[in-house]
Amino acid sequence: MILQNAFPVEAWQLRETFLDVDMLAQSESLFALSNGHIGMRGNLDEGEPHGLPGTYLNNFYELRPLPYAEAGYGYPESGQTLINVTNGKLIRLLADDEPFDVRYGELRSHERVLDLRAGTLHREVEWLTPTGRCVRIRSTRLVSLTQRAVAAIRYQVEVRDDQPLRVVLQSELVANEQLPGASDDPRVAASLQQALQPEHQARNDLWAVLVHSTKSSKLRIAAAMDHRYVTTSDCSTNNEVYEDLARATFTTVLEPGQTLELTKYLAYGWSAVRSVPAIRDQVAAALTGARHAGWDGLLAEQRAFLDEFWAGADVEVDGDAELQQAVRFALFHVMQSGARAERRPIPAKGLTGDGYDGHCFWDTETFVLPVLTYTMPHAVADVLRWRCTTGDQARERAAQLGLGGGTFPWRTIHGEECSAYWPAGTAAFHVNADIADAAVRYVNATGDTDFERTTGLRLLVDTARLWRSLGAHDRDGRFRIDGVTGPDEYTAVVDNNVYTNLMAQRNLVAAATVAERYGDEARELDVDREEMASWRDAADNMVVPYDDHLRVHPQAEGFTEHAMWDFEHTPPQNYPLLLHYPYFDLYRKQVVKQADLVLAMHLRGDAFSDAQKRRNFDYYEAITVRDSSLSACTQAVIAAEVGHLDLALDYTAEAALVDLRDLNHNTRDGLHMASLAGTWLALVAGFGGMRDHDGRLTFAPRLPGGITRLRFNLQYRGARVAVEIHPDAATYSMHGGARALTFAHHGKSVELADGRELTLPIPSPAPQPRPRQPQGREPTRRHTR
Amino acid sequence: MILQNAFPVEAWQLRETFLDVDMLAQSESLFALSNGHIGMRGNLDEGEPHGLPGTYLNNFYELRPLPYAEAGYGYPESGQTLINVTNGKLIRLLADDEPFDVRYGELRSHERVLDLRAGTLHREVEWLTPTGRCVRIRSTRLVSLTQRAVAAIRYQVEVRDDQPLRVVLQSELVANEQLPGASDDPRVAASLQQALQPEHQARNDLWAVLVHSTKSSKLRIAAAMDHRYVTTSDCSTNNEVYEDLARATFTTVLEPGQTLELTKYLAYGWSAVRSVPAIRDQVAAALTGARHAGWDGLLAEQRAFLDEFWAGADVEVDGDAELQQAVRFALFHVMQSGARAERRPIPAKGLTGDGYDGHCFWDTETFVLPVLTYTMPHAVADVLRWRCTTGDQARERAAQLGLGGGTFPWRTIHGEECSAYWPAGTAAFHVNADIADAAVRYVNATGDTDFERTTGLRLLVDTARLWRSLGAHDRDGRFRIDGVTGPDEYTAVVDNNVYTNLMAQRNLVAAATVAERYGDEARELDVDREEMASWRDAADNMVVPYDDHLRVHPQAEGFTEHAMWDFEHTPPQNYPLLLHYPYFDLYRKQVVKQADLVLAMHLRGDAFSDAQKRRNFDYYEAITVRDSSLSACTQAVIAAEVGHLDLALDYTAEAALVDLRDLNHNTRDGLHMASLAGTWLALVAGFGGMRDHDGRLTFAPRLPGGITRLRFNLQYRGARVAVEIHPDAATYSMHGGARALTFAHHGKSVELADGRELTLPIPSPAPQPRPRQPQGREPTRRHTR
Repeated sequence: MILQNAFPVEAWQLRETFLDVDMLAQSESLFALSNGHIGMRGNLDEGEPHGLPGTYLNNFYELRPLPYAEAGYGYPESGQTLINVTNGKLIRLLADDEPFDVRYGELRSHERVLDLRAGTLHREVEWLTPTGRCVRIRSTRLVSLTQRAVAAIRYQVEVRDDQPLRVVLQSELVANEQLPGASDDPRVAASLQQALQPEHQARNDLWAVLVHSTKSSKLRIAAAMDHRYVTTSDCSTNNEVYEDLARATFTTVLEPGQTLELTKYLAYGWSAVRSVPAIRDQVAAALTGARHAGWDGLLAEQRAFLDEFWAGADVEVDGDAELQQAVRFALFHVMQSGARAERRPIPAKGLTGDGYDGHCFWDTETFVLPVLTYTMPHAVADVLRWRCTTGDQARERAAQLGLGGGTFPWRTIHGEECSAYWPAGTAAFHVNADIADAAVRYVNATGDTDFERTTGLRLLVDTARLWRSLGAHDRDGRFRIDGVTGPDEYTAVVDNNVYTNLMAQRNLVAAATVAERYGDEARELDVDREEMASWRDAADNMVVPYDDHLRVHPQAEGFTEHAMWDFEHTPPQNYPLLLHYPYFDLYRKQVVKQADLVLAMHLRGDAFSDAQKRRNFDYYEAITVRDSSLSACTQAVIAAEVGHLDLALDYTAEAALVDLRDLNHNTRDGLHMASLAGTWLALVAGFGGMRDHDGRLTFAPRLPGGITRLRFNLQYRGARVAVEIHPDAATYSMHGGARALTFAHHGKSVELADGRELTLPIPSPAPQPRPRQPQGREPTRRHTR
Repeated sequence: MILQNAFPVEAWQLRETFLDVDMLAQSESLFALSNGHIGMRGNLDEGEPHGLPGTYLNNFYELRPLPYAEAGYGYPESGQTLINVTNGKLIRLLADDEPFDVRYGELRSHERVLDLRAGTLHREVEWLTPTGRCVRIRSTRLVSLTQRAVAAIRYQVEVRDDQPLRVVLQSELVANEQLPGASDDPRVAASLQQALQPEHQARNDLWAVLVHSTKSSKLRIAAAMDHRYVTTSDCSTNNEVYEDLARATFTTVLEPGQTLELTKYLAYGWSAVRSVPAIRDQVAAALTGARHAGWDGLLAEQRAFLDEFWAGADVEVDGDAELQQAVRFALFHVMQSGARAERRPIPAKGLTGDGYDGHCFWDTETFVLPVLTYTMPHAVADVLRWRCTTGDQARERAAQLGLGGGTFPWRTIHGEECSAYWPAGTAAFHVNADIADAAVRYVNATGDTDFERTTGLRLLVDTARLWRSLGAHDRDGRFRIDGVTGPDEYTAVVDNNVYTNLMAQRNLVAAATVAERYGDEARELDVDREEMASWRDAADNMVVPYDDHLRVHPQAEGFTEHAMWDFEHTPPQNYPLLLHYPYFDLYRKQVVKQADLVLAMHLRGDAFSDAQKRRNFDYYEAITVRDSSLSACTQAVIAAEVGHLDLALDYTAEAALVDLRDLNHNTRDGLHMASLAGTWLALVAGFGGMRDHDGRLTFAPRLPGGITRLRFNLQYRGARVAVEIHPDAATYSMHGGARALTFAHHGKSVELADGRELTLPIPSPAPQPRPRQPQGREPTRRHTR
């Protein structure tokens, strides 16, 4: 758990006031910089100590064998793992021959600041060497949001006592860094240790490049660095390259008050097809661009990019400063994960760590893309175009499984299924409907018909075909989808999961509608009227189980018949349950890891009555343990909808603080991108009550106690829509819209002209008794501040 | 497929008329000799060529890691594998320096005979060496059924032309034989290659011993040999030992007509606790016993043992000579697997091969023990005592899974769960009821109250506790067992599997009854009246799903709602389905690998009406593909019961010929012990209509066309009961019974006094239309011979 005083509550930055070496791995994740293409964990400039050294390039992975003691047909044999690439962050300092290492000497002060408006990680240190010399170190790191292949570091050293100091700076590129905690499987270790094979090295003056390639995935990477330095002292330089190392050295003697300032420009590139010279020249060109902008130019571009982002995406929360900070921190990282991903996936951890092998899951489409749809829509199109480029793998996988269309992988980097446990992987077919849903939402929110006609149509057709082949009509003509796993991972391989069936229903209808709309393009995909009719028919007859006795929806057929989990005798230390109980026991009892039926009530809220939502929410609250970070935000959204506003706030805070307070004890592996995105969802869909079913924008704003004002911005069909919510009224405004916006406010349809604003009263909520959660799993109460 | 002319149909032997090197692996399994303690595959005396060299000791295994790409709580981390131990079968011949190898020179004749009454494997060869010399070789091998640790070989060489011949015999013990087809997992290979570590070697005169131990399982094995030889020529001998080799050499020059006859005595012992000297002396003592008996004595003991066995176990089939041979072959191997297993398991392959890692499954209790109960009852008590000795492992496993009592492993050698795929392993809890059922049947058939009070009670209490904790009452007070896998492995992790629930019901009732009967002993196991009442209550309220619409029992809740497998578009080469379709697809459709509901109708036939049996059988026939060898025999039994006598005969032949004709193409890995046992079940429970529900013996004999007479013997409560069935009447007789036998014949209760016989008419069957099987999966029609 990260203590609150380690990171004070501040509106636009995350500031670490002292260095806790035991928390390094967590802070490396929190302080990670990324533009979606390059990711750099917040490792200390000098490399050590570290929790986990991490430099990543999106989609740069190595293959590794997936072992099975008892294999089965269709089990993936090869996994993909995001690997730590050549580390260009390293700048080592020696002060009078003492290597700067925070574990030695004395840290007089150590502060790091992630500046959410500047887009930089800044560090200031005052260090007393073991021999008693005092130096000040300032470094600023950025991963450029404007120049995709570029990162840069400014590093300054200053003598802080009255004696001259011999200073050596070693600025490095290091490939094949030694990593902590390698796998104990010798085959996995063999494939991932020394993953980079040297191919080419070059240097000139203060410039160097290293080119490597991976053994099995056959990907090639180039990393290059160049330097500028400023000092009034006499500085000599040296530059060496080896197979796995490039090192530029700067040696000088600083008089008291003198500084040595080094600017390091970094460029990264990778390719599966380009040659060594081509990729070498590619990074050389990127370096040129960085030098051309210069340090100040890079800073200025970064800030301009972020000014634009925040203008369209900022969320203001009055009354809870911690939540205010958290939602901006969350938006910043979500933005970083997608800004320049450009037809690459957004992994579950972004590029902030190697958790989950750097894989992309349904999290991206279901939690991250809905946020980006309304804050940085181009990134959504990019991610979905990436999905579409993996269509061949999806169609091959479907064929292998005896299904039509395409089935997208549960977890992947390159598009092939990498899940080695099919009941919680391959069987979770809902990922396909989640992708379709994201595409439909994007098109509705942007009006991007080019995308709809190409990527959208292709994704919808492939997924609709999947559903049509996966389900079947029963003897009463109802369309069933059997033997699948829904979002809740504590139940698997069930019949007629409500979430899956409702999302498949939307998928089938959308496919028919879009295929109808683009008849020529649909015919090229061999879609005919019969096929479209069969999609509509399946959607019309979709089974949605309902328990007439309890008057709630069972999460899946038979779910409410199962024995209840024995929460009373489950000690707190036995959570998360999957680490302490076998799947077989979790699967056959009523215990929910993460919102499943409740998520259906969010994303397919149009399929439930208000009364059903209230009863369902209460029922599932009592059995949902939130062992997944993909739960609290959804519970917040529906809690707010059904009137449990304080509970919704509790869940919002849980989603928001998952990494800032390391609530799940695994922030060290990278940030929980979906939960961070969920913070926005909890505020906007929860307290803003925003829904976008079938492209109809609706709001039902209502604030919980303690929040005095909530304002959020949406990008919607080229316009900027702002919603400012006070306890008794909400004000809507729009700028840049081509035509008036029609939306609903608490069920009443209204129209808003461009450049105007509209204030509408908020009806009082009906008081609701707070539902019960499983014993010991109640969310932390968020007291009014 | 094994051609019929390779093994002519003969009543009391299996004779191979010529050597087909490509069929060596299959014939090694068919010709395996075993007493349940030692197992020797029918490898050629000279060792090579071979399909799979195999010498096994029951329960002598090595550990190996079980790898998981995605591990879960409670997954077994260590597997157990039966290993090939020191090979004592080897006798190599050199004739004028030419090593005898069937691949060189010319085989003038080669015949092997497995003699089912002598209990020997005999071989006669006439071989022309590559240089044109003619020798005759005769060998006879036995694994003693009377001296558990002993095997012996008599080997004779004779010159068959008119020149003197230099003959060298090398009789060997070889440890760590090189095996074909090692695992491609380096960790598994590392643990199983060179599995035996040398500890001790000794020799004296013509005697030698090798002691080894395993690396991980820490088991110690000693193998010893001694020799006697007879020749009128001048023979010199030599005897050497090395770490992995002992070799006794016999060199002579044979004149035409002269013979060299070698008798090799072998002794094996192993222990997890005994020291090198102790185990060395143990095998030395066993050798002494063998020499004391001498070759002729061993042969005589063997025949006497078998005379006794056949007197009580033989089945006579008139009208189908192939089936007559097959049932005796089957009974012989079933007898071999259990004769001297003595508190060790009977593996799925017996000791005839290393298929399934040499593991014991539910097959033993459900298919093998019902046969042994009525033919060699002491072996049943031994196997169940072995199960009981693994109670600690079962109780630990249950505790690990959060369950009460004990849960026995799906597959094991030493008692720990070794299944690495829990949906088809750990979840198949029915193994516990199968064990309980075997114990109840044994006690009913023998009246062995000592066993019932000790082993029986313990097994019943542990398994009843398991069921009580695994199931739960629903809101209507019905007792459900959710999330388990029944016998059919093409459906997994389901609610209320009919087979499981009915077998658990019997288990719970039996536990309460036996605990009531032995109150003192039950109290020592902390069983009180409340617990017994809770068992009876759960049994009384057991859920047995029924589909009112189709008027059949769904195999499990919801099964008949699922889509049908597309049999029409499943090409023949795609069977067995599990090698060509993913589990997820098999699990969610109506397709049955092996009798499940149909097995319930056999073992819990008392829970179904006649009409239900007919409808259920027809329904499941249409979707059962028999991808498991555990299916045909059960289908035979119920087919006969519901009146499809010709179909029953087809299935009986399929069960009977599974290995003799290599129907499943895997006889090379060892014999299908359960299917062999199933041959007896098909005849006795099928055409004999024998059932033993609740200890009441009932018969409903009825012969299919072509079978003119069927006679079988049962050992029952100390008596020998014989049943001889003709088309229109059956004759029952009893010898050695303490009191009259009450049983039912076609539903009518009758009484049979000791020493008397009773002939009763067989009612005519109602004609039934033959049910349909999945396209292409119809059994081979057995034409009347």
